[in-house]
Amino acid sequence: MRYNTPMDIKHIQETLRAFADERDWDQFHSPKNLAMALSVEVSELLEIFQWLTERQSCDIVNSERDMKDIEQEVADIFIYLLRLSDKLGIDIERAVTEKIAINAAKYPVAKAKGSAKKYNKP
Amino acid sequence: MRYNTPMDIKHIQETLRAFADERDWDQFHSPKNLAMALSVEVSELLEIFQWLTERQSCDIVNSERDMKDIEQEVADIFIYLLRLSDKLGIDIERAVTEKIAINAAKYPVAKAKGSAKKYNKP
Amino acid sequence: MRYNTPMDIKHIQETLRAFADERDWDQFHSPKNLAMALSVEVSELLEIFQWLTERQSCDIVNSERDMKDIEQEVADIFIYLLRLSDKLGIDIERAVTEKIAINAAKYPVAKAKGSAKKYNKP
Amino acid sequence: MRYNTPMDIKHIQETLRAFADERDWDQFHSPKNLAMALSVEVSELLEIFQWLTERQSCDIVNSERDMKDIEQEVADIFIYLLRLSDKLGIDIERAVTEKIAINAAKYPVAKAKGSAKKYNKP
Repeated sequence: MRYNTPMDIKHIQETLRAFADERDWDQFHSPKNLAMALSVEVSELLEIFQWLTERQSCDIVNSERDMKDIEQEVADIFIYLLRLSDKLGIDIERAVTEKIAINAAKYPVAKAKGSAKKYNKP
Repeated sequence: MRYNTPMDIKHIQETLRAFADERDWDQFHSPKNLAMALSVEVSELLEIFQWLTERQSCDIVNSERDMKDIEQEVADIFIYLLRLSDKLGIDIERAVTEKIAINAAKYPVAKAKGSAKKYNKP
Repeated sequence: MRYNTPMDIKHIQETLRAFADERDWDQFHSPKNLAMALSVEVSELLEIFQWLTERQSCDIVNSERDMKDIEQEVADIFIYLLRLSDKLGIDIERAVTEKIAINAAKYPVAKAKGSAKKYNKP
Repeated sequence: MRYNTPMDIKHIQETLRAFADERDWDQFHSPKNLAMALSVEVSELLEIFQWLTERQSCDIVNSERDMKDIEQEVADIFIYLLRLSDKLGIDIERAVTEKIAINAAKYPVAKAKGSAKKYNKP
């Protein structure tokens, strides 16, 4: 694996913006529509796992064919998420950093440890 | 905005991994469950837009309160996507780069331009 | 149209149960998996509407081909909803009647009238 | 349980139509928006199951509190599905009957029996 070099989110967003502009697709990319598209892509990922047991979903890493499908779905989700963030002027990295801090305060280790119940209903 | 510095995906993934380990939550994080959680978070984003017109969904950038909610949902989606990719050993940047190339071949400018129909049913 | 004769939910559920039993599919039909399958089917419906304007989504009734697709997706959603309710012993009609009463109390006409905001954030 | 009396779908649809009309909500109920609302409700159901094992999702019938939540989500899904079908003039019962016949032809017992793979990738 080589994902230790930082990812240039802004550059990818510029590529996606040019991609949409060239095709005159910006007219379809309202935040409402992009949120729908994001949801549709996530369901295509969900579909891969729907009839698998949890263990089978872990073992899927051994299937090259399934992993190729999963990678494409993950990419589609990422692409729509970056596109939506670009349209709304959201700084994803800042949003993620803030959310991790919120989660740390919401689920202190002492209370949340090993508990699906606490995890589920904080 | 300051999202022109590259984002260190791997570092965020390490933070998320430690966060789950400390809380003994790794037992819940099968790919199947993470895909479900991802889907649930995307729907929380969808909920914000469901009754808005497309125009209203564009104008939402003017509402500080709504934008705060949207940023948190975008962060949640990003977090689960990174967590899932970490569990499955997916190199997101490579997957995205490959998918953009696939899309460029699938939707050549000359054919796809301005067409929702072609966009929808390639 | 002929949907004025009451629908025999229980009979359809028996048909679906036999269908699953004959194929030895009951093993896959945990409530968790059926909820996932339901979500995947709803997204296939969502996909049809994702790039349409609201007006276009109304005018879709004039497209025989699109309506055929929509009918099949609606049927799939209905089938999984009935199957899930059967597995969990839920009386759908009673649940719906109760929920309509809850909604009537939650959204009194005087307060909710014409307001997307009240509709959205009760 | 008492769900052996046939359900009057058309009567429920008339109730829902009057409910929306009284509140002047019909303006929000484009097929596009109703499909989004349906998706959001299904995710609220999915949320209940996301961290449960399949076995736990079966045993949930023993939790009165969880079953109350599930029943309300099932009702919400049913309500939006009926509302959408009403707006588009879809005869749900006919659509379901046709889809069951399509599925029977698509998944013959001899081929589909006990196979998640065949089930998943027909």
